Amino acid sequence: MANKSLLKTIKSPSDIKGFTQEQLTALSEEIRQTIVETVSKNGGHLASNLGVVELTLAIHTVFDCPVDKIIWDVGHQCYAHKILTGRYSKIDTIRTENGLSGFPKRNESIYDSFDTGHSSTSISAAYGISCAGQIMKDYHYTVAVIGDGALSGGLAFEGLNNAGRSKNDLIVILNDNKMSISKNVGSMARYLSRMRIKPSYLDAKLKIQSKLSKIPGIGKPLSRALKKIKDWIREDFFAHQKNMFEQFGFAYYGPYDGHDIVQLQTALTAAKRRRGPVLVHVCTTKGKGYEFAEKNPKNFHGISAFDIETGEPVGSSMGYSEIMGDFLCKTAEVDKRICAITAAMSIGTGLSKFSKKFKDRFFDVGIAEEHAVTFSAGLAAGNMIPVFCVYSTFLQRSYDQIIHDAALQNLHIILAIDRAGIVGEDGETHQGIFDAAFLNTIPNVTVYAPSCFNELKSMMYNAVYRTSGVVAVRYPRGGELYLPSDYKPENTAYTFYGSIKSKILIVTYGRLFSYACLARESLQKKGIDVCILKLNIIKPISKSAVKKAALYDICCFFEESIKYGGIGETFGLKLFRCGFKGSYNITAIKNYVHQTKTDSALRRLGLDDKGMEEKILYIIKNRG
Amino acid sequence: MANKSLLKTIKSPSDIKGFTQEQLTALSEEIRQTIVETVSKNGGHLASNLGVVELTLAIHTVFDCPVDKIIWDVGHQCYAHKILTGRYSKIDTIRTENGLSGFPKRNESIYDSFDTGHSSTSISAAYGISCAGQIMKDYHYTVAVIGDGALSGGLAFEGLNNAGRSKNDLIVILNDNKMSISKNVGSMARYLSRMRIKPSYLDAKLKIQSKLSKIPGIGKPLSRALKKIKDWIREDFFAHQKNMFEQFGFAYYGPYDGHDIVQLQTALTAAKRRRGPVLVHVCTTKGKGYEFAEKNPKNFHGISAFDIETGEPVGSSMGYSEIMGDFLCKTAEVDKRICAITAAMSIGTGLSKFSKKFKDRFFDVGIAEEHAVTFSAGLAAGNMIPVFCVYSTFLQRSYDQIIHDAALQNLHIILAIDRAGIVGEDGETHQGIFDAAFLNTIPNVTVYAPSCFNELKSMMYNAVYRTSGVVAVRYPRGGELYLPSDYKPENTAYTFYGSIKSKILIVTYGRLFSYACLARESLQKKGIDVCILKLNIIKPISKSAVKKAALYDICCFFEESIKYGGIGETFGLKLFRCGFKGSYNITAIKNYVHQTKTDSALRRLGLDDKGMEEKILYIIKNRG
Repeated sequence: MANKSLLKTIKSPSDIKGFTQEQLTALSEEIRQTIVETVSKNGGHLASNLGVVELTLAIHTVFDCPVDKIIWDVGHQCYAHKILTGRYSKIDTIRTENGLSGFPKRNESIYDSFDTGHSSTSISAAYGISCAGQIMKDYHYTVAVIGDGALSGGLAFEGLNNAGRSKNDLIVILNDNKMSISKNVGSMARYLSRMRIKPSYLDAKLKIQSKLSKIPGIGKPLSRALKKIKDWIREDFFAHQKNMFEQFGFAYYGPYDGHDIVQLQTALTAAKRRRGPVLVHVCTTKGKGYEFAEKNPKNFHGISAFDIETGEPVGSSMGYSEIMGDFLCKTAEVDKRICAITAAMSIGTGLSKFSKKFKDRFFDVGIAEEHAVTFSAGLAAGNMIPVFCVYSTFLQRSYDQIIHDAALQNLHIILAIDRAGIVGEDGETHQGIFDAAFLNTIPNVTVYAPSCFNELKSMMYNAVYRTSGVVAVRYPRGGELYLPSDYKPENTAYTFYGSIKSKILIVTYGRLFSYACLARESLQKKGIDVCILKLNIIKPISKSAVKKAALYDICCFFEESIKYGGIGETFGLKLFRCGFKGSYNITAIKNYVHQTKTDSALRRLGLDDKGMEEKILYIIKNRG
Repeated sequence: MANKSLLKTIKSPSDIKGFTQEQLTALSEEIRQTIVETVSKNGGHLASNLGVVELTLAIHTVFDCPVDKIIWDVGHQCYAHKILTGRYSKIDTIRTENGLSGFPKRNESIYDSFDTGHSSTSISAAYGISCAGQIMKDYHYTVAVIGDGALSGGLAFEGLNNAGRSKNDLIVILNDNKMSISKNVGSMARYLSRMRIKPSYLDAKLKIQSKLSKIPGIGKPLSRALKKIKDWIREDFFAHQKNMFEQFGFAYYGPYDGHDIVQLQTALTAAKRRRGPVLVHVCTTKGKGYEFAEKNPKNFHGISAFDIETGEPVGSSMGYSEIMGDFLCKTAEVDKRICAITAAMSIGTGLSKFSKKFKDRFFDVGIAEEHAVTFSAGLAAGNMIPVFCVYSTFLQRSYDQIIHDAALQNLHIILAIDRAGIVGEDGETHQGIFDAAFLNTIPNVTVYAPSCFNELKSMMYNAVYRTSGVVAVRYPRGGELYLPSDYKPENTAYTFYGSIKSKILIVTYGRLFSYACLARESLQKKGIDVCILKLNIIKPISKSAVKKAALYDICCFFEESIKYGGIGETFGLKLFRCGFKGSYNITAIKNYVHQTKTDSALRRLGLDDKGMEEKILYIIKNRG
């Protein structure tokens, strides 16, 4: 291990401006070590960060931050940037409570120009920032760094389509690592791979010229004619046969070796000199410099803590995603209509096996959640049963498509919503806290919320075969939590667990049921009898469940979702309209949730067993 | 006027298969007349429908519907299709209550394969339908007809990116009329215009050959060398210098004259024979055949009833959109930070004047609502004050961008939400009934709801200068309704109008306040005293308003928005938790709202003055 002697001297990017090539190479080594050490302890995005070390150094030697603005698309490749912009001393706190974020945050540093987390936003945001500079005559360079995977998102295309017609000094760096999260898909990916193997466009022109001069019978005397040919070629072909980025109005530079700092510096300097929008195509290797990550970048995309020497994760167990994957494989075996759709998350959502076993019914659409839903609606219109496996936070992208392309036609599509609720260290941008509320607003939608693996399976069965229209099944990141031995999952809209004679009712759904059971047991020891109403279907809410709940004196609703427009509000109003005269209380999420381990976040939000117990004791006390 | 002798004989598309060219030309004339007559009476989308008459005839002579599936992007160009698929006799009912929809509807006809209304969905849906056919070995052709305007939407790009890599017999017809709703924008538009003026790609190859043979000193003897040159050109350039659609994996045919039926039939037949995805580029004239519409297609995009002889609209008055446009112009005059953003709706949202006066601060981003919000967030990060003027229904597309790119960073962007509430004849796909509920779910968002022009101005002022974070101001389609002479708009979070001694309270917001006032007056005549609580800010809800409301016996909430997760639910729960012991009732929208005039829809939904009065009388009666 190096001693990080260079890193310790860097307080801001201006400190590396005068570095020699040797120093920069040594620095890149120190940064790589720091990243591997940090991620092995804290978890995080390893492969993507290792891939952009030289690129980040080149950017910070050529541009002048914070005057020039850098926007990191997705943002999971910003560790080197953070290390170079005064945050090296805190890098070991990354992704921990009160520590540095794993993503750029404007409120963390003046060097972070725009918060990111979801994919494909950088070109639009950068174009907005650069237009602001133009209007206010506050001229600076705006640089968006976007991966080839993020280019499959429609928003990136909308950004290119708009920025390309401007005259702003906007530089888009295409960080082409041939991967998004898993292997990249779609025509754009195929196109980029062609660009990588072909000589660049200017080289091709020169090659033709030299070939022409070697044709027997033409030779040198025909130089004038040759010139004419060249002009015609240029005029007739190149004028409208530009590469895709040029067609979008960008000057295209590349492709360059993304691990050659000098080449990158030269390219970025040229891009800086060129007026108007420029796209710089840079080829990088995901996981560069850490053997295990280079060999297996998709396993080292977003990871938990791991052992540096072996590359093996520290602890790992069966989760809801795997159960979902198994369910789909078993069902697809006997039902030819079952299709699985993912937006670049085949591993994360447990679809690896399905993707191999049912190739013709597996669709990885790339990072394109809008398309995923409309495409699923098309499949359903063709009498298939599509299951879109998607993280809750990314499904936010499909709100209109769920309404307009699926629910309005009452098409039967299934949304398997993974990572619903708190996700932990990825923090604010990735929490799955909106799906319950936004699905709540849409007619023709049913939402199931399992609390254990067996329920996931039975509810998925219901979703596929016993429920019409758009059906969502939402489940958390990770695995099963505590379940009392006498709890038996029922295949009903709701379950009352505990004594009916109790005066106090906890209402909840999903994994919070486990915490509710623990709270109940703890309160029981204190002589307080609590019953639990577990909603298995959170939309629509069962009228009979509400009627029964209205008989209690105290009713506390706990949900791991946004409060406003959420299930607790809908339930509560129904309760009062049913004649409830008692005390009703909602504990839910009122704001974006910062990074920390999931259990710590639930603790902080009052949504774990302790929080539930405290809330009930407080209410009892205050009612006298 | 022709006597529609041909049209009367057509019961299904198979009836026109054997038509001669003369018959088809005569038929196209009959269809055009029918469309102009119908739209002049019922309103609707004129220019786009007139543009695709020949194309629709060509499609239905070449393909076999309903076995083959046609998906009309946006769907506002489906009138000729409806006329040819057994619905001619009902075409005069289009866009009226219980009549034909102005958009394709699966539940209206087996010839409508997929419901559309919002832009850019057709490629994704068609690809889904064609995949279903492949998997089930139920082979057929799937045809998506998409305008060049819709191509600026990211979803269309995601569709191209996915469909282009397939081997399905999917045919995308690019209906290139150089317009979306107003003039088309962006690099894609510029690219298409280059393709239109250039000879087609195959022609260009031939031209080079013939030019070469004319160069003095080369001539005919060099034919062998020429062959080689040609091969190299092909190899070195064409292999990777394909046009954009070819780069996406589509075979490209075109451009063709979209008003030449024979040419279209030939092209579509060729596309049909070709295996794999094909894009057929067709150039049409919006408004073709109706002089006023050809000259001024943007005025004849979506229109109300008009006079056929003069092309003038029947009745028209000042609306909220114009007031908004004026406000923005006046504010931008004195504040250089004000920017206006529209997604292809500059006329509809009242921005025509702004677009001319403040060119550098006006951004028409094309049909790209996601980009519009992220771009606005970028402008705000650059210290501008962006105002995105957008129809409520289309803002659904930006849900994630509002959360992730604007509200999470608490960036100050303003959403000027036009067409909030019922919009009338466009029907289900276009009602603005979700914005109140989905904005309700997002932290750091404030939502204003003006009930008259003066309030729109004062609330916009508040939104721009006195409110932080994401601020929405939502207002209905059309103009002001009734306001009592003694009503004085106040610049507060809520207004109580009427006697405080009353026992009955109507709570509402936006234009429903006018109906509430009428209901109040009518009830007053019956000796029933009603007070009105008008919420000027619907998110967050004022605590003091709720406290005051809790003192009434009967509280009826009326909202022109979806009920689930809506403002009425949030308000109601707060009311009960404030100790309200009375009767609480919500009248809101529970399902997609079918087409009919706005006042008829409000009547049907119980949201007009009569509905409010009936509801209150009913509650009084039932309370005894």
